[in-house]
Formats: sequence, C-alpha cells, structure tokens
Amino acid sequence: MNDTALIVVDIQNDYFSGGKWELNAVDSAADKIFESGAILLCLAKRRGQFFPKDSKGAASVLQWLFWQAASLGPILGQAVFFLNYASEHVPLAVERFSKETERLYRLMEPQLSHHPFIAGEYSIADMAIYPWLLQHEKQGTKLEIYPHIAAWLAKITARPAVIRTYAKGEEIRPSGQTDEDRKKLYRLS
Amino acid sequence: MNDTALIVVDIQNDYFSGGKWELNAVDSAADKIFESGAILLCLAKRRGQFFPKDSKGAASVLQWLFWQAASLGPILGQAVFFLNYASEHVPLAVERFSKETERLYRLMEPQLSHHPFIAGEYSIADMAIYPWLLQHEKQGTKLEIYPHIAAWLAKITARPAVIRTYAKGEEIRPSGQTDEDRKKLYRLS
Repeated sequence: MNDTALIVVDIQNDYFSGGKWELNAVDSAADKIFESGAILLCLAKRRGQFFPKDSKGAASVLQWLFWQAASLGPILGQAVFFLNYASEHVPLAVERFSKETERLYRLMEPQLSHHPFIAGEYSIADMAIYPWLLQHEKQGTKLEIYPHIAAWLAKITARPAVIRTYAKGEEIRPSGQTDEDRKKLYRLS
Repeated sequence: MNDTALIVVDIQNDYFSGGKWELNAVDSAADKIFESGAILLCLAKRRGQFFPKDSKGAASVLQWLFWQAASLGPILGQAVFFLNYASEHVPLAVERFSKETERLYRLMEPQLSHHPFIAGEYSIADMAIYPWLLQHEKQGTKLEIYPHIAAWLAKITARPAVIRTYAKGEEIRPSGQTDEDRKKLYRLS
C-alpha cells in the first residue's frame, strides 16, 4: 500500500512494560490509531476494499469483526494460555475456556457451510479471524470435525496477498520462536 | 427511537442453550445484527448521533469502542467471574485477570484527565464502557485511586437518557438479582 508504512512493534517490550499498547497504523495525516479492529476498518474505508458498500453487507461484516474482537480473540487467547503456558494446570480455567472455544468453532462451522467467507465475500472480518484459527492445535481443537472451517482456512492460506504477508512476517521475525519465548510473551502470570 | 423496537432477550436461556447468541437490533429493513459494538455503530450511523463526522474523530471513537469490546469487557468479565462466582478460588486466574483489570483502569484514567469523555465528546464508546465500570466493586477495584474515572462515571450516571434507560431496565428485570441467579448466569464453569 503506497500510503501506508509498516512499523514493527516489539510486542513483548511495548505491551508488557505496563504502558499503553499502541499498535499504530500510520495514516496519511500521520494520526495514530490503536486496536486491530479499528485499524482494519479505517484501512478498508480508506482503500475502498474488503468492506461492503451496502448497509446490510456492512452490518454483517461489522458483527463478525466485533465477534472476533470481543469473543473469538479473548477466549481463544485464554485457552492457548491455560492449555500451554500457565505456570500450573488449572482444571477449572482449562474447562471454562476450552468449552467456550468449542462453542465458538461450532458457531463458525455452519456459517461457513452457507457462505464462501464468514460474512459473504472475503472481508476484513476473515482477515481478523484467520490468524487465530491457524493456532487451532494450541487451542486443543480437532479441525477434522470442522470441515468448512478447514476449507476456509486453506482457501485463505492460498491467497497471494496472504502468502506475501506471511513471507514478510517470517523475514521480520523468523518463526523459530521457542516455548521459552512464548512463555515470556504470555508472562501475565 | 421511533424506528427501533426494544426486544428483551433472556440471556440465560438464549445464550447458554448452546446456540448462537443474537442480541438483535431490529432495523427498518428487519435485518438482524449481533454484537453490541456493531449494533451501536449501526444505530449511531442511522441516527447520526454519538459518532463524529470527521475521520480523525471517528477513528478515535472506533479505537476506544474496539478497546472496550476486545479488552475491557473480556478481561473485566473474567475478573468478575474468578473473583465472585467461580466454584473454587483459583489464585493464578485471580491474579492474571486482576492485574490486567488494573492495567486497563490505569489506561483510562489519564485519558479521562485530558478529555471530557473517553474519545472527546460523549459517544457510543462511552456507552459501551460505562456499564462495565459501574461494576467496579466486583472487579476488586478501588475507585478512589481513579478520580477521573469516578467523575466520568458520575457525569454519565446523571444524563437524563441514562436515568431513563436504567429505570426501564429496572422495570423489565428488577435488580433484586440474587447471588444464586448470578451463579446460574455465569455457569460456564
């Protein structure tokens, strides 16, 4: 994107230094904006892409985008933490977040059986959800029982822009992240 | 609002029956939309109220609206659960969510010391945040150490529309909710 600069944020130091986490999208007026959902909406609006022009389509993308922000991300994030990185095994928390994770997958599956993407056409809602679903193993989820989610993941993974973006990510931070690194990243407790 | 119908949702039965939780805002075309953040945005757009017309102001409201949806709500919700309603005391979870709750309060406080409302003028971002902050006692938070949050809460509580809305809520479901009721509501674990 010609008018957009990529700025690499050191999430461990910026986030956990106790300050305010600003993952900034720098726009043409050099304004700052945080929260990935808000950034996606602003970029989609500026570029006129990946967000429907009609109000019914727009409402559908908005609801799935907020669903990712408010439910999918927060719950899957806790599931990943309590299943993989907590300093002790906490059965109550594991059960709580695993059950809710399954509920969220069960909610996506029929939606993707009726639509090519989560809100119809490929949109910023798919972009927001995709990276979370890629981590399905760490969430204790068996993808075999969600064939439409699996097909949707494969379809997005094959998109040229997605391939380019993940290659760029690998360049910036090679994925040889160790479990030690991840523990540090999740060191909230 | 002339073109908006109030529909009461039984959250215990609708949400926890394992189905899809649709808290619907019924719009003029009788479309359904879920996720309170998306509903607020659609209503604000339709009414032309509580959402800035300029792109910089809009971006600011969007980022705080997503911050409520993605951080404040999910984290305070878990803090309320683990501090008050979990079937056992889980120190690791209590510490995790209490620390993050404090971080979120500490982030609001300076913002409200520089702005009359969270994103400047009173907006849907304040409406989304307000009900969560009202529950500060159940989150183990001492409001005395956040004077600007306390003043902001009092200012919103005094708004005529807020007074009317809470009176309407009391009418629909009297607040004599017992701890037993709350345990049922939180029965995810």
